[in-house]
Amino acid sequence: MRKEKMDLIKKYYEEYKTINRVKEESGTFLKSEAYFITLNNGLIIKREKLLKGNKDGSASIIIPITKEKEILMVIEPRVFTKDTVAINFPAGYIEKDELPIESAKRELLEETGYVSDDWIKIDSYYQDEGCSEAYNYIFLALNCIKKMNQNLDNDEITYPILLNYEEVFELEDMGYITGANSKLALHKTKKLIERSLK
Amino acid sequence: MRKEKMDLIKKYYEEYKTINRVKEESGTFLKSEAYFITLNNGLIIKREKLLKGNKDGSASIIIPITKEKEILMVIEPRVFTKDTVAINFPAGYIEKDELPIESAKRELLEETGYVSDDWIKIDSYYQDEGCSEAYNYIFLALNCIKKMNQNLDNDEITYPILLNYEEVFELEDMGYITGANSKLALHKTKKLIERSLK
Repeated sequence: MRKEKMDLIKKYYEEYKTINRVKEESGTFLKSEAYFITLNNGLIIKREKLLKGNKDGSASIIIPITKEKEILMVIEPRVFTKDTVAINFPAGYIEKDELPIESAKRELLEETGYVSDDWIKIDSYYQDEGCSEAYNYIFLALNCIKKMNQNLDNDEITYPILLNYEEVFELEDMGYITGANSKLALHKTKKLIERSLK
Repeated sequence: MRKEKMDLIKKYYEEYKTINRVKEESGTFLKSEAYFITLNNGLIIKREKLLKGNKDGSASIIIPITKEKEILMVIEPRVFTKDTVAINFPAGYIEKDELPIESAKRELLEETGYVSDDWIKIDSYYQDEGCSEAYNYIFLALNCIKKMNQNLDNDEITYPILLNYEEVFELEDMGYITGANSKLALHKTKKLIERSLK
Protein backbone atom coordinates (compact mmCIF):
# COMPACT_ATOMS: atom_id res chain seq x y z
CA MET A 1 0.00 0.00 0.00
CA ARG A 2 1.44 3.36 -1.06
CA LYS A 3 2.02 5.58 1.97
CA GLU A 4 0.28 8.62 0.42
CA LYS A 5 -2.85 6.54 -0.19
CA MET A 6 -2.92 5.23 3.38
CA ASP A 7 -2.37 8.76 4.70
CA LEU A 8 -5.30 10.02 2.62
CA ILE A 9 -7.53 7.20 3.86
CA LYS A 10 -6.59 7.89 7.49
CA LYS A 11 -7.24 11.63 7.00
CA TYR A 12 -10.77 11.03 5.72
CA TYR A 13 -11.49 8.29 8.26
CA GLU A 14 -10.64 10.87 10.91
CA GLU A 15 -12.71 13.60 9.26
CA TYR A 16 -15.79 11.46 8.58
CA LYS A 17 -15.93 9.54 11.86
CA THR A 18 -19.07 9.82 14.00
CA ILE A 19 -18.49 11.78 17.18
CA ASN A 20 -22.07 12.02 18.36
CA ARG A 21 -25.49 10.63 17.59
CA VAL A 22 -28.88 11.68 18.84
CA LYS A 23 -31.92 9.48 18.46
CA GLU A 24 -34.97 11.05 16.84
CA GLU A 25 -38.60 10.32 17.56
CA SER A 26 -39.08 8.45 14.30
CA GLY A 27 -37.78 8.20 10.76
CA THR A 28 -39.45 8.62 7.41
CA PHE A 29 -37.05 6.73 5.10
CA LEU A 30 -37.18 3.08 6.24
CA LYS A 31 -40.65 1.60 6.30
CA SER A 32 -42.11 -1.88 6.18
CA GLU A 33 -45.17 -3.73 4.98
CA ALA A 34 -46.43 -7.03 6.39
CA TYR A 35 -48.07 -9.79 4.36
CA PHE A 36 -49.76 -13.12 4.87
CA ILE A 37 -48.56 -15.25 1.99
CA THR A 38 -50.12 -18.41 0.65
CA LEU A 39 -47.74 -20.88 -0.97
CA ASN A 40 -48.81 -23.29 -3.69
CA ASN A 41 -48.56 -26.21 -1.24
CA GLY A 42 -51.22 -24.60 0.97
CA LEU A 43 -48.94 -23.28 3.71
CA ILE A 44 -49.50 -19.73 4.91
CA ILE A 45 -46.46 -17.76 6.09
CA LYS A 46 -46.02 -14.21 7.32
CA ARG A 47 -43.26 -12.04 5.84
CA GLU A 48 -42.36 -8.37 6.06
CA LYS A 49 -40.93 -6.23 3.29
CA LEU A 50 -38.55 -3.32 3.74
CA LEU A 51 -39.14 -0.08 1.84
CA LYS A 52 -36.66 2.76 1.46
CA GLY A 53 -38.22 6.15 0.77
CA ASN A 54 -41.37 4.42 -0.52
CA LYS A 55 -39.27 2.56 -3.12
CA ASP A 56 -37.82 -0.96 -3.07
CA GLY A 57 -34.26 0.30 -2.48
CA SER A 58 -32.69 -1.15 -5.64
CA ALA A 59 -29.23 0.24 -6.37
CA SER A 60 -26.50 0.31 -9.01
CA ILE A 61 -22.90 -0.42 -8.02
CA ILE A 62 -20.06 0.69 -10.31
CA ILE A 63 -16.49 -0.59 -10.55
CA PRO A 64 -14.76 2.29 -12.34
CA ILE A 65 -11.39 1.63 -14.01
CA THR A 66 -9.68 4.78 -15.26
CA LYS A 67 -7.88 5.27 -18.57
CA GLU A 68 -4.67 5.21 -16.47
CA LYS A 69 -5.62 1.71 -15.19
CA GLU A 70 -6.50 2.70 -11.67
CA ILE A 71 -9.54 1.60 -9.66
CA LEU A 72 -11.77 4.36 -8.35
CA MET A 73 -13.41 3.94 -4.96
CA VAL A 74 -14.96 6.31 -2.41
CA ILE A 75 -14.40 6.88 1.30
CA GLU A 76 -17.72 7.62 3.01
CA PRO A 77 -19.37 7.84 6.43
CA ARG A 78 -21.04 4.52 7.32
CA VAL A 79 -22.40 5.55 10.65
CA PHE A 80 -23.74 2.17 11.80
CA THR A 81 -20.47 0.27 11.24
CA LYS A 82 -17.79 -0.29 13.88
CA ASP A 83 -15.40 2.26 12.31
CA THR A 84 -18.31 4.59 11.31
CA VAL A 85 -16.50 5.09 7.96
CA ALA A 86 -15.85 2.68 5.07
CA ILE A 87 -14.48 2.40 1.54
CA ASN A 88 -16.82 1.32 -1.24
CA PHE A 89 -17.34 1.35 -4.97
CA PRO A 90 -19.49 4.28 -6.11
CA ALA A 91 -23.15 3.29 -5.80
CA GLY A 92 -26.60 4.70 -5.35
CA TYR A 93 -30.30 4.05 -5.43
CA ILE A 94 -32.07 3.67 -8.74
CA GLU A 95 -34.61 6.48 -9.09
CA LYS A 96 -38.16 6.10 -10.33
CA ASP A 97 -38.30 5.64 -14.15
CA GLU A 98 -34.51 5.24 -14.31
CA LEU A 99 -32.80 2.25 -15.90
CA PRO A 100 -30.03 0.61 -13.81
CA ILE A 101 -27.38 1.72 -16.33
CA GLU A 102 -28.66 5.31 -16.25
CA SER A 103 -28.48 5.27 -12.48
CA ALA A 104 -24.92 3.89 -12.67
CA LYS A 105 -23.80 6.67 -15.05
CA ARG A 106 -25.46 9.34 -12.92
CA GLU A 107 -24.03 8.06 -9.63
CA LEU A 108 -20.51 7.70 -11.03
CA LEU A 109 -20.61 11.30 -12.24
CA GLU A 110 -22.18 12.68 -9.06
CA GLU A 111 -19.95 10.84 -6.60
CA THR A 112 -16.66 11.10 -8.47
CA GLY A 113 -16.96 13.46 -11.46
CA TYR A 114 -15.86 10.62 -13.80
CA VAL A 115 -17.51 9.35 -16.98
CA SER A 116 -17.00 6.15 -18.97
CA ASP A 117 -17.70 5.24 -22.61
CA ASP A 118 -17.40 1.49 -22.02
CA TRP A 119 -19.90 -0.13 -19.65
CA ILE A 120 -20.18 -3.87 -18.96
CA LYS A 121 -23.02 -5.39 -16.94
CA ILE A 122 -21.55 -7.90 -14.47
CA ASP A 123 -24.38 -9.23 -12.33
CA SER A 124 -27.64 -8.47 -10.55
CA TYR A 125 -28.91 -9.79 -7.23
CA TYR A 126 -31.20 -9.20 -4.24
CA GLN A 127 -29.57 -7.16 -1.46
CA ASP A 128 -31.51 -8.83 1.37
CA GLU A 129 -33.58 -11.52 -0.25
CA GLY A 130 -35.70 -12.56 2.73
CA CYS A 131 -37.25 -9.19 3.45
CA SER A 132 -36.81 -6.83 0.51
CA GLU A 133 -37.42 -6.42 -3.21
CA ALA A 134 -34.19 -4.39 -3.57
CA TYR A 135 -32.52 -5.75 -6.72
CA ASN A 136 -29.00 -4.41 -7.33
CA TYR A 137 -26.91 -4.20 -10.49
CA ILE A 138 -23.11 -4.35 -10.75
CA PHE A 139 -21.43 -2.57 -13.67
CA LEU A 140 -17.81 -2.41 -14.73
CA ALA A 141 -16.98 1.03 -16.23
CA LEU A 142 -13.80 1.04 -18.33
CA ASN A 143 -11.73 3.97 -19.71
CA CYS A 144 -13.07 6.35 -17.06
CA ILE A 145 -11.96 9.96 -17.36
CA LYS A 146 -12.54 12.89 -15.05
CA LYS A 147 -15.08 15.30 -16.55
CA MET A 148 -16.03 17.55 -13.65
CA ASN A 149 -16.01 17.87 -9.88
CA GLN A 150 -18.24 15.86 -7.58
CA ASN A 151 -21.86 16.95 -7.46
CA LEU A 152 -23.28 15.35 -4.34
CA ASP A 153 -26.84 15.22 -3.09
CA ASN A 154 -27.62 17.07 0.09
CA ASP A 155 -26.59 14.82 3.02
CA GLU A 156 -24.30 12.72 0.77
CA ILE A 157 -20.60 12.72 1.63
CA THR A 158 -17.96 10.77 -0.29
CA TYR A 159 -14.28 11.28 -1.09
CA PRO A 160 -12.99 9.58 -4.26
CA ILE A 161 -9.67 7.72 -4.14
CA LEU A 162 -7.67 6.06 -6.94
CA LEU A 163 -6.14 2.69 -6.04
CA ASN A 164 -4.27 -0.10 -7.76
CA TYR A 165 -5.41 -3.74 -7.86
CA GLU A 166 -3.25 -4.93 -4.96
CA GLU A 167 -4.28 -2.00 -2.79
CA VAL A 168 -7.98 -2.78 -3.21
CA PHE A 169 -7.55 -6.34 -1.97
CA GLU A 170 -5.19 -5.17 0.77
CA LEU A 171 -7.85 -2.71 1.95
CA GLU A 172 -10.41 -5.52 1.99
CA ASP A 173 -8.08 -7.72 4.07
CA MET A 174 -7.41 -4.82 6.47
CA GLY A 175 -11.14 -4.31 7.03
CA TYR A 176 -11.68 -1.04 5.18
CA ILE A 177 -14.00 -2.59 2.58
CA THR A 178 -16.78 -4.13 4.65
CA GLY A 179 -20.04 -3.90 2.71
CA ALA A 180 -21.74 -6.80 0.91
CA ASN A 181 -22.21 -4.81 -2.31
CA SER A 182 -18.57 -3.79 -2.74
CA LYS A 183 -17.28 -7.21 -1.71
CA LEU A 184 -19.57 -9.06 -4.10
CA ALA A 185 -18.77 -6.62 -6.93
CA LEU A 186 -15.05 -7.10 -6.30
CA HIS A 187 -15.02 -10.89 -6.08
CA LYS A 188 -17.50 -11.51 -8.86
CA THR A 189 -15.56 -9.21 -11.22
CA LYS A 190 -12.05 -10.19 -10.09
CA LYS A 191 -10.93 -11.91 -13.31
CA LEU A 192 -12.36 -9.17 -15.53
CA ILE A 193 -10.75 -6.42 -13.43
CA GLU A 194 -7.40 -8.23 -13.72
CA ARG A 195 -7.79 -8.47 -17.48
CA SER A 196 -8.87 -4.85 -17.91
CA LEU A 197 -5.87 -3.56 -15.94
CA LYS A 198 -3.37 -5.24 -18.28
CA MET B 1 -26.93 -30.21 -14.64
CA ARG B 2 -28.19 -33.71 -13.75
CA LYS B 3 -31.80 -34.18 -14.82
CA GLU B 4 -32.92 -35.57 -11.43
CA LYS B 5 -31.56 -32.44 -9.70
CA MET B 6 -33.32 -30.07 -12.08
CA ASP B 7 -36.56 -32.06 -11.67
CA LEU B 8 -36.25 -31.77 -7.88
CA ILE B 9 -35.63 -28.03 -8.10
CA LYS B 10 -38.63 -27.55 -10.39
CA LYS B 11 -40.84 -29.64 -8.08
CA TYR B 12 -39.98 -27.48 -5.05
CA TYR B 13 -40.17 -24.22 -7.04
CA GLU B 14 -43.70 -25.24 -7.93
CA GLU B 15 -44.57 -26.28 -4.38
CA TYR B 16 -43.12 -23.19 -2.68
CA LYS B 17 -44.27 -20.53 -5.10
CA THR B 18 -46.47 -17.72 -3.81
CA ILE B 19 -50.03 -17.98 -5.08
CA ASN B 20 -51.58 -15.22 -2.96
CA ARG B 21 -50.57 -12.44 -0.63
CA VAL B 22 -52.68 -10.31 1.69
CA LYS B 23 -51.37 -7.10 3.19
CA GLU B 24 -51.65 -6.74 6.94
CA GLU B 25 -52.23 -3.60 8.96
CA SER B 26 -48.65 -3.49 10.21
CA GLY B 27 -45.71 -5.71 10.98
CA THR B 28 -43.73 -6.32 14.16
CA PHE B 29 -40.43 -7.70 12.79
CA LEU B 30 -38.90 -4.88 10.73
CA LYS B 31 -38.44 -1.64 12.63
CA SER B 32 -36.26 1.43 12.27
CA GLU B 33 -34.58 4.07 14.38
CA ALA B 34 -33.63 7.55 13.15
CA TYR B 35 -30.55 9.48 14.27
CA PHE B 36 -28.98 12.87 13.82
CA ILE B 37 -25.27 12.16 13.54
CA THR B 38 -22.42 14.57 14.05
CA LEU B 39 -19.25 13.84 12.09
CA ASN B 40 -15.82 14.84 13.29
CA ASN B 41 -15.65 17.54 10.59
CA GLY B 42 -18.72 19.24 12.07
CA LEU B 43 -21.28 18.09 9.49
CA ILE B 44 -24.59 16.79 10.78
CA ILE B 45 -26.32 14.06 8.76
CA LYS B 46 -29.51 12.09 9.31
CA ARG B 47 -29.46 8.33 8.99
CA GLU B 48 -31.93 5.54 9.76
CA LYS B 49 -31.09 2.11 11.08
CA LEU B 50 -33.01 -1.08 10.33
CA LEU B 51 -33.82 -3.51 13.15
CA LYS B 52 -35.08 -7.05 12.72
CA GLY B 53 -37.02 -8.45 15.67
CA ASN B 54 -35.39 -5.82 17.93
CA LYS B 55 -31.94 -7.15 16.98
CA ASP B 56 -29.46 -5.93 14.37
CA GLY B 57 -30.21 -8.81 11.99
CA SER B 58 -26.69 -10.29 11.85
CA ALA B 59 -26.58 -13.73 10.28
CA SER B 60 -24.30 -16.71 9.69
CA ILE B 61 -24.04 -18.23 6.21
CA ILE B 62 -22.69 -21.76 5.80
CA ILE B 63 -21.14 -23.42 2.74
CA PRO B 64 -21.47 -27.12 3.62
CA ILE B 65 -19.34 -29.66 1.74
CA THR B 66 -20.25 -33.26 2.49
CA LYS B 67 -17.88 -36.16 3.12
CA GLU B 68 -18.93 -37.36 -0.38
CA LYS B 69 -17.70 -34.03 -1.84
CA GLU B 70 -21.07 -32.55 -2.62
CA ILE B 71 -22.25 -29.00 -1.91
CA LEU B 72 -25.37 -28.68 0.23
CA MET B 73 -27.82 -25.87 -0.53
CA VAL B 74 -31.49 -25.23 0.28
CA ILE B 75 -34.50 -24.36 -1.85
CA GLU B 76 -36.73 -21.91 0.03
CA PRO B 77 -39.63 -19.49 -0.47
CA ARG B 78 -38.33 -15.96 -1.13
CA VAL B 79 -41.65 -14.29 -1.42
CA PHE B 80 -40.45 -10.82 -2.48
CA THR B 81 -38.33 -12.05 -5.40
CA LYS B 82 -39.52 -12.36 -9.00
CA ASP B 83 -39.70 -16.18 -8.85
CA THR B 84 -40.94 -16.13 -5.19
CA VAL B 85 -38.53 -19.06 -4.55
CA ALA B 86 -34.71 -19.22 -4.54
CA ILE B 87 -31.73 -21.46 -3.83
CA ASN B 88 -29.30 -20.42 -1.09
CA PHE B 89 -26.67 -21.69 1.25
CA PRO B 90 -28.07 -22.56 4.68
CA ALA B 91 -28.14 -19.39 6.81
CA GLY B 92 -29.88 -17.81 9.73
CA TYR B 93 -29.96 -14.98 12.21
CA ILE B 94 -27.51 -14.98 15.09
CA GLU B 95 -29.45 -15.18 18.36
CA LYS B 96 -28.79 -13.13 21.47
CA ASP B 97 -25.71 -14.38 23.37
CA GLU B 98 -24.79 -16.70 20.49
CA LEU B 99 -21.40 -16.69 18.77
CA PRO B 100 -21.46 -16.61 14.94
CA ILE B 101 -19.97 -20.14 14.78
CA GLU B 102 -22.58 -21.48 17.22
CA SER B 103 -25.29 -19.95 15.08
CA ALA B 104 -23.73 -21.53 11.98
CA LYS B 105 -23.67 -25.00 13.57
CA ARG B 106 -27.25 -24.65 14.83
CA GLU B 107 -28.62 -23.39 11.50
CA LEU B 108 -26.85 -26.09 9.48
CA LEU B 109 -28.35 -28.78 11.74
CA GLU B 110 -31.83 -27.23 11.82
CA GLU B 111 -32.10 -26.52 8.10
CA THR B 112 -30.43 -29.66 6.76
CA GLY B 113 -29.82 -32.19 9.57
CA TYR B 114 -26.08 -32.16 8.76
CA VAL B 115 -23.13 -31.62 11.11
CA SER B 116 -19.46 -30.84 10.42
CA ASP B 117 -16.29 -31.37 12.47
CA ASP B 118 -14.19 -29.01 10.33
CA TRP B 119 -15.24 -25.35 10.23
CA ILE B 120 -13.30 -22.56 8.47
CA LYS B 121 -14.20 -18.89 8.88
CA ILE B 122 -14.15 -17.25 5.42
CA ASP B 123 -15.24 -13.64 5.81
CA SER B 124 -17.50 -11.19 7.60
CA TYR B 125 -19.28 -8.11 6.23
CA TYR B 126 -22.20 -5.72 6.58
CA GLN B 127 -25.36 -6.85 4.81
CA ASP B 128 -26.63 -3.34 4.05
CA GLU B 129 -23.94 -1.00 5.27
CA GLY B 130 -25.74 2.32 4.84
CA CYS B 131 -28.74 1.56 7.02
CA SER B 132 -28.07 -1.45 9.23
CA GLU B 133 -25.68 -2.87 11.82
CA ALA B 134 -26.29 -6.40 10.50
CA TYR B 135 -22.85 -8.02 10.32
CA ASN B 136 -22.77 -11.42 8.65
CA TYR B 137 -20.29 -14.29 8.84
CA ILE B 138 -19.45 -16.82 6.13
CA PHE B 139 -18.24 -20.27 7.18
CA LEU B 140 -17.04 -23.23 5.13
CA ALA B 141 -18.09 -26.51 6.77
CA LEU B 142 -16.12 -29.54 5.54
CA ASN B 143 -16.74 -33.30 5.98
CA CYS B 144 -20.44 -32.75 6.59
CA ILE B 145 -22.46 -35.85 7.48
CA LYS B 146 -26.18 -36.28 7.96
CA LYS B 147 -27.02 -36.74 11.63
CA MET B 148 -30.77 -36.25 11.77
CA ASN B 149 -33.77 -34.87 9.90
CA GLN B 150 -34.46 -31.16 9.48
CA ASN B 151 -35.78 -29.40 12.56
CA LEU B 152 -37.22 -26.15 11.28
CA ASP B 153 -38.56 -23.18 13.19
CA ASN B 154 -42.24 -22.47 12.87
CA ASP B 155 -42.75 -20.48 9.61
CA GLU B 156 -39.38 -21.66 8.20
CA ILE B 157 -39.49 -23.75 5.03
CA THR B 158 -36.41 -25.10 3.27
CA TYR B 159 -35.65 -28.18 1.20
CA PRO B 160 -32.00 -29.35 1.19
CA ILE B 161 -30.39 -30.34 -2.11
CA LEU B 162 -26.95 -31.84 -2.82
CA LEU B 163 -25.16 -30.38 -5.85
CA ASN B 164 -21.78 -30.63 -7.50
CA TYR B 165 -19.45 -27.68 -8.17
CA GLU B 166 -20.51 -27.12 -11.79
CA GLU B 167 -24.19 -27.34 -10.93
CA VAL B 168 -23.90 -24.58 -8.31
CA PHE B 169 -22.38 -22.13 -10.81
CA GLU B 170 -24.83 -23.26 -13.46
CA LEU B 171 -27.72 -22.51 -11.09
CA GLU B 172 -26.25 -19.07 -10.43
CA ASP B 173 -25.99 -18.37 -14.17
CA MET B 174 -29.56 -19.58 -14.68
CA GLY B 175 -30.87 -17.17 -12.02
CA TYR B 176 -31.75 -19.64 -9.26
CA ILE B 177 -29.14 -18.25 -6.84
CA THR B 178 -30.05 -14.59 -6.54
CA GLY B 179 -29.22 -13.40 -3.01
CA ALA B 180 -26.22 -11.23 -2.06
CA ASN B 181 -25.23 -13.53 0.82
CA SER B 182 -25.09 -16.76 -1.19
CA LYS B 183 -23.40 -15.05 -4.14
CA LEU B 184 -20.73 -13.41 -1.99
CA ALA B 185 -20.15 -16.66 -0.05
CA LEU B 186 -19.78 -18.56 -3.33
CA HIS B 187 -17.42 -16.14 -5.08
CA LYS B 188 -15.31 -15.30 -2.05
CA THR B 189 -14.83 -19.01 -1.27
CA LYS B 190 -14.52 -20.25 -4.85
CA LYS B 191 -10.85 -21.32 -4.72
CA LEU B 192 -11.21 -22.99 -1.33
CA ILE B 193 -14.35 -24.84 -2.46
CA GLU B 194 -12.47 -26.08 -5.54
CA ARG B 195 -9.59 -27.28 -3.39
CA SER B 196 -11.81 -28.97 -0.81
CA LEU B 197 -13.68 -30.91 -3.53
CA LYS B 198 -10.51 -32.54 -4.84
